[in-house]
Amino acid sequence: MEKIPYKIFLTEEEMPKSWYNLRADMNNKPAPLLNPQTKQPCTLAELEKVFCKELAKQELDDSTRFIPIPDEIRNFYRMFRPSPLIRAYCLEEKLGTPAHIYYKFEGNNTSGSHKLNSAIAQAYYAKQQGLKGVTTETGAGQWGTALSMACSYYGLDCKVFMVKVSYEQKPFRREVMHVYGASVTPSPSIETSVGRKILMEHPGTNGSLGCAISEAVEVAVNLEGYRYVLGSVMNLVGLHQSIIGLETKAALDKYGIKADIIIGCAGGGSNLQGLIAPFMGEKIRGENDYRIIAVEPKSCPSLTRGAFAYDYCDTGHICPLAKMKTLGSNFIPSANHAGGLRYHGMSSTLSQLYEDGLMEATSVEQTKVFEAGIEFARVEGILPAPESNHAIRIAIDEALKCKETGEAKNIVFGLTGTGYFDLFAYERYRNKEMADYIPTDEELQASFAKLPKI
Amino acid sequence: MEKIPYKIFLTEEEMPKSWYNLRADMNNKPAPLLNPQTKQPCTLAELEKVFCKELAKQELDDSTRFIPIPDEIRNFYRMFRPSPLIRAYCLEEKLGTPAHIYYKFEGNNTSGSHKLNSAIAQAYYAKQQGLKGVTTETGAGQWGTALSMACSYYGLDCKVFMVKVSYEQKPFRREVMHVYGASVTPSPSIETSVGRKILMEHPGTNGSLGCAISEAVEVAVNLEGYRYVLGSVMNLVGLHQSIIGLETKAALDKYGIKADIIIGCAGGGSNLQGLIAPFMGEKIRGENDYRIIAVEPKSCPSLTRGAFAYDYCDTGHICPLAKMKTLGSNFIPSANHAGGLRYHGMSSTLSQLYEDGLMEATSVEQTKVFEAGIEFARVEGILPAPESNHAIRIAIDEALKCKETGEAKNIVFGLTGTGYFDLFAYERYRNKEMADYIPTDEELQASFAKLPKI
Repeated sequence: MEKIPYKIFLTEEEMPKSWYNLRADMNNKPAPLLNPQTKQPCTLAELEKVFCKELAKQELDDSTRFIPIPDEIRNFYRMFRPSPLIRAYCLEEKLGTPAHIYYKFEGNNTSGSHKLNSAIAQAYYAKQQGLKGVTTETGAGQWGTALSMACSYYGLDCKVFMVKVSYEQKPFRREVMHVYGASVTPSPSIETSVGRKILMEHPGTNGSLGCAISEAVEVAVNLEGYRYVLGSVMNLVGLHQSIIGLETKAALDKYGIKADIIIGCAGGGSNLQGLIAPFMGEKIRGENDYRIIAVEPKSCPSLTRGAFAYDYCDTGHICPLAKMKTLGSNFIPSANHAGGLRYHGMSSTLSQLYEDGLMEATSVEQTKVFEAGIEFARVEGILPAPESNHAIRIAIDEALKCKETGEAKNIVFGLTGTGYFDLFAYERYRNKEMADYIPTDEELQASFAKLPKI
Repeated sequence: MEKIPYKIFLTEEEMPKSWYNLRADMNNKPAPLLNPQTKQPCTLAELEKVFCKELAKQELDDSTRFIPIPDEIRNFYRMFRPSPLIRAYCLEEKLGTPAHIYYKFEGNNTSGSHKLNSAIAQAYYAKQQGLKGVTTETGAGQWGTALSMACSYYGLDCKVFMVKVSYEQKPFRREVMHVYGASVTPSPSIETSVGRKILMEHPGTNGSLGCAISEAVEVAVNLEGYRYVLGSVMNLVGLHQSIIGLETKAALDKYGIKADIIIGCAGGGSNLQGLIAPFMGEKIRGENDYRIIAVEPKSCPSLTRGAFAYDYCDTGHICPLAKMKTLGSNFIPSANHAGGLRYHGMSSTLSQLYEDGLMEATSVEQTKVFEAGIEFARVEGILPAPESNHAIRIAIDEALKCKETGEAKNIVFGLTGTGYFDLFAYERYRNKEMADYIPTDEELQASFAKLPKI
């Protein structure tokens, strides 16, 4: 067997030609989205008022296993894909572990994360439908950046509602979106009725993802030629992100490597769902077994401590309801929480898989997360995004367990993006100004009490 | 012939095993460095007081064509090399040019630029020599970032003197260096006698590269177990950077492509010298002909308007003198100049090649440079560093000439790095707050009058 290189690259021709729809293989399908007025399952016609036609179709399709990736999207992918699967030789040596650590690196593009995989697909379908533009929200800013790049490529207008605290703390993120021609509005804003309502009730608010979603949806449904797009939580996003897992699996297969543990960070679930898709498919079909671990922040622990219930996806309650692991649509993680992974809910698909015992979940303090990120950066070179540091934390912990037991397990994790725009957070950590915050049981119970009765 | 992919990747095994020392093929060798006291050619023993032994040897070696890359350095390279040679299909389509445009992308590593190629080599030789640490200067911050990464990998202490205006305007750059464990001091500082002298004479100064070099050298020669390292201008840096050109040539050869025009930005010359090395070698040996174009800022035009003379490399006049194209060691580009490429001189090797008529040079206004960068970013995805935008500007201009003439030339340029830490400059450009500055003939003549009489 040939020595495994540092970076396993597939050729552009080996790049997957279809996305993999994991739901087709699930025995318990994720519960359907509900119309917020009627509380009945959303129809295609209803979804098409908010979302692009083809994307609404993809959202509802839980039976087609493989959905071809249009050539135009594959051509865009070629600019930054296939992404490398990297063997962390230097980290292994540093840890002195017999484990073999691999990471799928999705940060090698200007948006700095995996979000571009779905952004370009959504922009493509919007263009194909003849739309003028799209609206969206962004929190940490990765999704907004990716979407602005994708829209600029297709000449679509892009209106981003950016959570106010990020807008102010991340001027560089904002500027990248401007360079790509997007308009960026701090949320809540006076541009929407839901924004004005929230500002009236909470004049000093820093904003939240749930609120920015409401604003973006309101604009999309009221503006001729616009639709709303989003970068996580929904099934269609997990579908596009399956390219991460398909490439990872193909790269491992190329060298005859069988993953033992697969680790990903989880906020809304876009990256994790994509990374694990083909492995989970094999696991469900009984072809192979894998330990699959979702890692979330202790300050926003939807999988590990959330309720499994129908909940609103947005603060303004104008979006469909989803059955998911949720902390309640009014839950906002502590202001000291750095980076993304701050959404109150979790993709219905991942929530169902977790409930079915097919996947583990764990939560970590952010100081431990940054500690792992810096340890990783110093030997592997790459400066990771805070989100990615969650996966790194657990990958290191599992590798250290292997050191104790002497097992040479194959650990695979998703390195979702780079931390170039998160350096204030790194500085806070290094200066010991970063605190950990864990919501109390009472807080969560109070939040659960407000869940809609469905 | 197979279709040329978007990204031509060499395998790790195809990565060059030796650096190419272009000077060995030059008919007119670059003039030797002179000792600033004696004004006689520097000896190896003299250089070793300031530089690492092996690096001093490489600096003086103008006859060995190929110098093997130690395995330890090649292993580090594997984390981010071979870097892709990208076919700019989308830019070609946007421009409607029959030209084929290729760019060698060196920004896919956390330092964000090609500087890491030499940083890791220099850190390796320092470690091998048993040193405790190294000192250096950084202007725009790319070199300091790269060196801090390299030193962290080898556990070396890294003291960076950062030009004061960059230190203040680029907190993220500073923080990346901190994450990698470097100490970063704004220059001029009160930590060195040369810094104190400059502060006394110019209390409100923003600092300059020449001044930061003097401080870094002063600390290196006075501190037990330390040496000075630097990221451009010197022959040894061009040697390490030859890996850029060697990979570029190998990738083109793989698909039977003959470059017609090779374009690179030029400040001190590190990237350009590396990119053009094997092509220039063929040109000198008469095996092939290429148009080779250096692009510099109009605000710091050392090649196009500088004197060709012996000059000091630093403001404090404690470093060796080099014969080079220079604007004078006290020349500081206008404060409104964004990005790097602000050094007063140019590598002796490139200066000699230019004087010998083997290379062209052109200069461009910074507003035209940012215009090109944004045009590129919107179709090719990558957000380029301001330095790289200089090469992009001329590559686009040459591609548009091909559109007029109908020629399908192969244009190759160096995309040295990413612009994630230069977004304030992008914002100034977009907000039309960026001016162009061109030094007057009188200014330059006054500066030339102060050149040392050698």
